[in-house]
Amino acid sequence: MRATVLVRPKAGILDPQGAAVQTSLRHLGFAVDEARVGRLVEFEVEAADADEARAAIERMCEQLLANPLIESYAIELEGEHA
Amino acid sequence: MRATVLVRPKAGILDPQGAAVQTSLRHLGFAVDEARVGRLVEFEVEAADADEARAAIERMCEQLLANPLIESYAIELEGEHA
Repeated sequence: MRATVLVRPKAGILDPQGAAVQTSLRHLGFAVDEARVGRLVEFEVEAADADEARAAIERMCEQLLANPLIESYAIELEGEHA
Repeated sequence: MRATVLVRPKAGILDPQGAAVQTSLRHLGFAVDEARVGRLVEFEVEAADADEARAAIERMCEQLLANPLIESYAIELEGEHA
């Protein structure tokens, strides 16, 4: 099952990379605001169904993919067949 | 208008960060394959409509947000009001 995990800095957490992107975009002439940079992790996961996949991916996020103190994550599953 | 840009390493391009994530997830006991790591950039963009926003974001991707030689990008717009 194809999974996409979006990892974002939580609201209120300093995001220097986002600040740098915003400054650079403005220097290039683009009217942007509130820029934030996160990570995108995609993989194939073996699971019997979507519920099992989602439970496993939540454990992956807590153990490795995200820092729950400063980051939030969202899980998207494509296709429901293992 | 809220915009999300997903930047991914192109197919066939070496992705050491994805390989490291995959190895680590497997060591933790998760059955994952084909892991790839990309970036997620989100911001507010001023634009009269979605077409104008999309055109501006494509220029941002080509000039700053992505390396078109080795990365592909996808643009998602939330809400059609500037």
